[in-house]
Order: sequence, then C-alpha cells, then structure tokens
Amino acid sequence: MSASKKLVELFYDVVSPYSWIGFEILCRYRNVWNIDVRLRPGFLGGVMQGAENKPPGFVPRKFEYMKKDLHRLGCYFNIPLAQPQNPAEVMFVKGTLQAMRFVTATNILQPELTEVLSRELWMRIWSRDEDITEPASFQAVATAIGLSKDQAIKLIEFSKSQEVKDSLKSTTQEALDNGAFGFPFIIAHVNSKKEVFFGSDRMELLAHCLGEKWLGPLTSNSKSKI
Amino acid sequence: MSASKKLVELFYDVVSPYSWIGFEILCRYRNVWNIDVRLRPGFLGGVMQGAENKPPGFVPRKFEYMKKDLHRLGCYFNIPLAQPQNPAEVMFVKGTLQAMRFVTATNILQPELTEVLSRELWMRIWSRDEDITEPASFQAVATAIGLSKDQAIKLIEFSKSQEVKDSLKSTTQEALDNGAFGFPFIIAHVNSKKEVFFGSDRMELLAHCLGEKWLGPLTSNSKSKI
Repeated sequence: MSASKKLVELFYDVVSPYSWIGFEILCRYRNVWNIDVRLRPGFLGGVMQGAENKPPGFVPRKFEYMKKDLHRLGCYFNIPLAQPQNPAEVMFVKGTLQAMRFVTATNILQPELTEVLSRELWMRIWSRDEDITEPASFQAVATAIGLSKDQAIKLIEFSKSQEVKDSLKSTTQEALDNGAFGFPFIIAHVNSKKEVFFGSDRMELLAHCLGEKWLGPLTSNSKSKI
Repeated sequence: MSASKKLVELFYDVVSPYSWIGFEILCRYRNVWNIDVRLRPGFLGGVMQGAENKPPGFVPRKFEYMKKDLHRLGCYFNIPLAQPQNPAEVMFVKGTLQAMRFVTATNILQPELTEVLSRELWMRIWSRDEDITEPASFQAVATAIGLSKDQAIKLIEFSKSQEVKDSLKSTTQEALDNGAFGFPFIIAHVNSKKEVFFGSDRMELLAHCLGEKWLGPLTSNSKSKI
C-alpha cells in the first residue's frame, strides 16, 4: 500500500528544540498515519537570514517562557528535553553548521542512519548539554549510533566536501523557496498540492489535512506532571 | 460543585485573531472542563511595548504564513475568521484602544455582556472587515448585542472615563507582571500555582495541566476542508 502513502517532509536543524519535538512526533505517527516521512536536514541559520527573521529567544520574556514551554512539551511528549547551561552559546556561538553537514553527509551515504544520528545530536545538546562541534564529539556520536571508527572517519571526511556543503545549502534553500521562516518546517504533499506548516504545534491541523486523526503524544508517559 | 472549579483567566485584545481562537475554545470548553473562565480584556499594544516585542507579521514570510494559518484554524475550529482587506491599517493605524476601553467599561458595568460584545467586535474586524473605531460603530455593536440606545450611550460615555482607562491599563500591566509578551495569554490557577500559557495553540497542554482532556474543536463543522 506504499503507493497511497502521503509524503510528509520535515525540514529541521538539531539546533532547534522545537524541531526535535516535531521530529519525534512525526517519527511516532509514521507508524499510525498512512504517511512516508522524509527527513530533510537543513541549516536554520540560513533560513533565518534568508527570511530576515530573528530567533524568538531575542525577546527576554519570550526566552523565559520558552524554557517553561519546552519543559512542559518535553514532559507531555516524553522527550528528555533539558535546557543547556548556556543556550545562547550552544545556539549562536557554537552553532550547528558542522553538525548539520555531518547529518547531510550521513543522509547522502547512509540515509537509514539519519534518524538515529539526528536524535543522538539532539540528545547531546538539548538533553545532556554536550558539545557537538569538536571532532571528538562527532566520533562519539558515530560510536553511539553503532558506526565503526573507519565508517565514522569516512562520514566526517565526506561532511567537509563541497558536495555536502552544496547539498545542505540546497535543502535550506528549498525550505526558503517554500516559504519557511524558521524550523521545524513541514511540507505535506496532499492531492498534488504542497501544504506547509511551521512549528511543532500544528500537528492536529496536519492530521486533519492528511485525513488522519490526532491521537496526542502516543506515549504512556504523558501522564506525568508538567 | 462550583467551589472546586479551577479558574482560567484569558487576557485578550480584539485586535488579535489568535486571541479570538483562544477565546472561542475556552468559551466552549468552559462547558466541558471543570473550570471558570474569567475574561480579562487588555491592550495588546501596551503588552508589546512593555515586553519590547514586535508583532509576528513584521516578518513578511511570517505574515504570509499567518494568513494561511488563520484560515486553516478558522475552518478547523469553525470560527468565521476572514482577513480584512488591509490588516496593517486595522491593527496598527486604527488600533483597538477605544474598542478595548469599551469592552473594559462593559466588563465593569455589565460583565455578563463582555463575551458577546468581544465576539461582536471580532466579527466586525476579523470576519466582516468593518470599522471598530467610529462612534457609529460602537452604537452598531451595542445594538447588535441587544442594548438600548440609552444603555449604549451610557457605556460609550463611561468608556472615556479615567476609571476605565486605569482599569484597562491595570489589566494590561497584570498580564505583563505575569510574563506576557503577547496575547492571548492564559493564567490557569492550579493547586494554588499560576500556570501561564501564551497563544491559542497550547490548549492540549492546558488541558493536561488542568487534569482535563483535550477533545479537539468541539464542533461538527471541523470536518470541512482546510
């Protein structure tokens, strides 16, 4: 029945905790809705620049609220989100350009690993407050997802190539061309039309648009206190 | 059983279409959840200034997306939202200071009318693209909600008083004091704690926080195409 499955593309960057929420929700609902989820690793910095948008955290009260909001969403959706000690450094000083090139390289050479790799990167910065910019960090990530040292070296080398740089740029541009001004950004292909959704909080509308049903977090842990 | 009802305060301004969505959802769920909804008409301009925040529509792509998003939400929640011809003029040139003073005056003298009055004002600007700044418009609104000409004149006069101006300021300040950076802004009083929510898209989390269940739009019309 694969032919009748609707394609849902998720543009994301591991710098973005809301992207993580959108990613986990779609990974869960892929088994419930009649959809194919296509992971599209992009570069959020490029989207923000292209859209002349600013991160919401630049407004101090919004930043304070986001901490609470992310904590609640993490509990509700059973995603082990935890604020890094210094989110501004993680997001704006260190950034994720190398990390997203690493994801892109993996997505080209071993696309079956894109999901676990992305999750491991999110676990590092948005759960355990670990680095994702140093070569040793990429090695650690590769090991964590079961790659051999040789495979890891090959992917890390490939992630520095022009092909990978161009591929990441092109995915980022594709998001912009479809109206993105931030991540997560979803393109659902419904009746030969593209329906775009911004954020991780339009899943009930996405379900409706796909002719499916929103069933909440799909996890028993969402009963925990938020 | 009224004593055990949890208080949910909704801070809103009729300038904000997302506030309208939050308002209608809470007005519906008030009959389903064990809550008391307290309507808190405020002035969004004052909140944005106090929070040093900018309306999302200032980023052109976000503005384009919001039009689509509001259309979808309107259909899904069965709220007759329609973009005015010139939203920037409605929101930023004409504004809603007088209108929100009118709502505040009503909320002081005839609080049982606050809900229908607010809805009628939203219907005017966010559904039928009608003025809500001229004296004739306030008269028309008053008539639409069943007030006599005398009652209308009394409310319109009272809305110009210092008492009303101060009351609107104080409600706006209360939202700011609780961390608001935009509307709708919700304060749920749960176990002697204030839980705050921004936006109309955290209702499932609000339900969870209240120990209630999110049941979707509670309207049969949400089957329509979005």
